[in-house]
Amino acid sequence: MYTSINNPKIKYLKKLNNKKYRKQNKEFLIEGMHLVKEAYNAGILKELYIKEDNIDIDVPKYLIDDKVVKYLTSVQTPTGIFGLCEIKENKLKGNKLLILDNIQDPGNLGTIIRSSVAFNIDTIILGHDCTDPYSQKVLRSSQGMIFHTNIIEKNLLSFLPEIKKEYKLLATKVDGGKELDPFKKINKFAIIMGSEGSGVKEEISNLCDEYLYIPMNKNCESLNVAVATSIILYELRGD
Amino acid sequence: MYTSINNPKIKYLKKLNNKKYRKQNKEFLIEGMHLVKEAYNAGILKELYIKEDNIDIDVPKYLIDDKVVKYLTSVQTPTGIFGLCEIKENKLKGNKLLILDNIQDPGNLGTIIRSSVAFNIDTIILGHDCTDPYSQKVLRSSQGMIFHTNIIEKNLLSFLPEIKKEYKLLATKVDGGKELDPFKKINKFAIIMGSEGSGVKEEISNLCDEYLYIPMNKNCESLNVAVATSIILYELRGD
Repeated sequence: MYTSINNPKIKYLKKLNNKKYRKQNKEFLIEGMHLVKEAYNAGILKELYIKEDNIDIDVPKYLIDDKVVKYLTSVQTPTGIFGLCEIKENKLKGNKLLILDNIQDPGNLGTIIRSSVAFNIDTIILGHDCTDPYSQKVLRSSQGMIFHTNIIEKNLLSFLPEIKKEYKLLATKVDGGKELDPFKKINKFAIIMGSEGSGVKEEISNLCDEYLYIPMNKNCESLNVAVATSIILYELRGD
Repeated sequence: MYTSINNPKIKYLKKLNNKKYRKQNKEFLIEGMHLVKEAYNAGILKELYIKEDNIDIDVPKYLIDDKVVKYLTSVQTPTGIFGLCEIKENKLKGNKLLILDNIQDPGNLGTIIRSSVAFNIDTIILGHDCTDPYSQKVLRSSQGMIFHTNIIEKNLLSFLPEIKKEYKLLATKVDGGKELDPFKKINKFAIIMGSEGSGVKEEISNLCDEYLYIPMNKNCESLNVAVATSIILYELRGD
């Protein structure tokens, strides 16, 4: 039982709030029963840190007291359930790729990850300027769906020419983009979505093979990026 | 020029952070140039409170100092631009209605409002248990699109039987819902979307004429509510 926030293990778990430590140790912390179950089902849950031992999950368990719960939590009403998870080393695979350029909002990234699972994306490729997918807010917004995705991080400008040999590169464009229907027939594609404020960077957009757009009322300039991405993935989901 | 946070007018503007005062006075406060422009274009901007008089908008303007800006702002890096707006009295109109039951997250509500404008919704009907649409966070997430929508608030249980006489009432249902395509032909519809956690309340869902669902991968239990709503509105947007 851990009852001190000065214990090195507890201090380590707390440090996993920081992206640097997550990258360094290839581990991250999750909170709450729903995420713990999803992580266990995905085979990445290593240890549980819990206030009460009433969880029937077969990984090493450590009891923690209220002080430690309060120290580790990132929510207002903590459930007292934390899981230590492994960051898997993933590789590019499959026919349907989603590439994200400079997505900053954790809520949007989590929502996009959730929709990617719903609509059959095989690999998500994050540019280095995206927000970290293993932060508490992204994990929560993804509703644990992040554990069922294959996510890799790349320098997009050097990686895209590689991908382009095999996949049709698609991006959105308000002027000159085509409607979505014809794109449903493409077998291997990589759809690139850009930042909330300014869209896909020009030097990246210029690398694309085709441009698409979502038809909408002229009173509306643009959609939320998680909504726009989800509509495109929905349309290109295949069968 | 207002330089004191004790000035009654400034105190009043601050009070508009509170839903009770917004309802009582039928006014709300917005912040930032983008929202101010959208509100002006929509004809609901009454007064401007600004740090510098460099805005070419024809409404009464009042200068405020840094102290007042800091007092009124709801963001970390304030622009020093505030607008006092009128809450319009709206009425049910049009053929395409969106009904929201117990949407609690302000970001989700704002995003849904933004998509409603994009996809031609004529009236949004909020149940009384939805979060208030005139809070700063909803206004920001809507990107000012809220000023271009027709929003009304109703007791859904008593209002829906009225609507049902004229409109086809639709809701989502995971089991037994139909695919979206056939619904595109319906002329007058009201689509009901429910809370983030538990969907549309059963007594409301039971009033519906038809049920639809969004096809998705079985690894994904559900979509974010703003995403699900946006995909349905996109499909039913008409021409």
